[in-house]
Amino acid sequence: MIERLAIVGLGLLGGSVAKAVRARRLAREVVGIGRDAGRLEPARKEGVIDRATTDLAAGLDGADMVLLAVPVITIERLLPAVAENVAKEAVVTDVGSTKAAIVRKAEHLAERHPFRFVGSHPMAGSERSGYAVAREDLFQGATVIVTPTDATDAGGVKDVAAFWEAMGARVSMLDPVTHDRVVAAISHLPHLVAYALVEGAQRFEPTALDFAARGFRDTTRIAASDPVVWQEIFAANRMPLLASLASFRDAVADLERLVEAGDARALQQWLARVKAVREALG
Amino acid sequence: MIERLAIVGLGLLGGSVAKAVRARRLAREVVGIGRDAGRLEPARKEGVIDRATTDLAAGLDGADMVLLAVPVITIERLLPAVAENVAKEAVVTDVGSTKAAIVRKAEHLAERHPFRFVGSHPMAGSERSGYAVAREDLFQGATVIVTPTDATDAGGVKDVAAFWEAMGARVSMLDPVTHDRVVAAISHLPHLVAYALVEGAQRFEPTALDFAARGFRDTTRIAASDPVVWQEIFAANRMPLLASLASFRDAVADLERLVEAGDARALQQWLARVKAVREALG
Repeated sequence: MIERLAIVGLGLLGGSVAKAVRARRLAREVVGIGRDAGRLEPARKEGVIDRATTDLAAGLDGADMVLLAVPVITIERLLPAVAENVAKEAVVTDVGSTKAAIVRKAEHLAERHPFRFVGSHPMAGSERSGYAVAREDLFQGATVIVTPTDATDAGGVKDVAAFWEAMGARVSMLDPVTHDRVVAAISHLPHLVAYALVEGAQRFEPTALDFAARGFRDTTRIAASDPVVWQEIFAANRMPLLASLASFRDAVADLERLVEAGDARALQQWLARVKAVREALG
Repeated sequence: MIERLAIVGLGLLGGSVAKAVRARRLAREVVGIGRDAGRLEPARKEGVIDRATTDLAAGLDGADMVLLAVPVITIERLLPAVAENVAKEAVVTDVGSTKAAIVRKAEHLAERHPFRFVGSHPMAGSERSGYAVAREDLFQGATVIVTPTDATDAGGVKDVAAFWEAMGARVSMLDPVTHDRVVAAISHLPHLVAYALVEGAQRFEPTALDFAARGFRDTTRIAASDPVVWQEIFAANRMPLLASLASFRDAVADLERLVEAGDARALQQWLARVKAVREALG
């Protein structure tokens, strides 16, 4: 049982955690922290949080668990103030979709102001954002990657894993650097590609988008994601993203050569091999 | 009312047409034509077709409407025999996902053996194939692009449009060349990209696929499509596909430059512009 959970940011992810925590009685008290008091008001009125504050230090006071549920760049920006104001036995985690820079910064700060930071990345969400779309079952069946390093407190890792599991998530562990390569390949690059598919189609044949069928809509659904969030994610994970883009480009070039060459057999084999890989994902 | 409908190929598309025609009583008689008698048997047993034959000429005999529901390359290969064996007042259409070459070939053949060819492309289907997954409601709400040219018989166009509409489809008209550019951009290129995303992810970070979340699975669902069908489609629509790939590559290069430059504002604007386009697709 958490005594006092402080959630910084009550958007889709922070709001969904607050709702799940309340519904499952995982914390005695939930404090919502945000820049804009008006945006915290719906959660307070609904009883999803007990208190709302725009003062980070006041909100962190007495918290034994802290969740940073703001965009990645904001997490990095807030970390020094979190380190200064949080109790040293508190466990702090986050929802950032990149981990290496955040974990590195938290560990660096903890050398001066000890606190127990454990990186988390809940792989749940939607192209929509904001408290209005938060739901208590968002993490049910979702994967949460927790990213301990050699410097991470083992008890904190246990607490954070238990926290997500109590909300119905499956927890996996990866080191922060591998995590960032993984999400570049399976999330950030597909977003970049989805945006480029829409833009490329429009440039190539403007009438094409009038005929977008299910395949195109599925493939490009994530191009409706929040531009502010995704600009930040692309920036935060720039190097792994560009590296995974290079691998993708090589694969595209393979296919282009096979199509140009008209080698039916080789192209079929290439596609069949990839189909088998894709089918294994379910 | 169609007197005798001959369907060449009883896979997902041909089988679904047969089921829809039967359920809605759109034809007095339905003849199924295929290479493999065994594969036609389930449809005959279920009463979805009245007769089954592996003899194209016999199957086309007396048909007033013919549907070629085989892969694009097979359609091109069968057209000369269709032209020779079909009645000159019969309306022949197809389900090929590329149109320029098929329509050109049909019109060329019709100069010697007159018959009324009208190209169709029902934008329905699934990554699964075969009669076992055929369903009578496959075309309900689907878009069918019909591709008349100046040489196409106007009555035939009306009949073919009415045929698809009777199965619940919405019919749009495009000339065959624009059609092929449209489907390159919204269907063939997204398939190529989906295959390349899976392959690129596996090359870049093999563990990545263990963490494929909804976004990746959506974006790459179509990489589970039939390799034989898609090799043929890529080959049949090679030039528009490669041209649309060039536009896509330019869009990717734009994004790569913006990410590399770290120009948050410009990147956000680019993403926001594309998000608006994507959202308009629903």
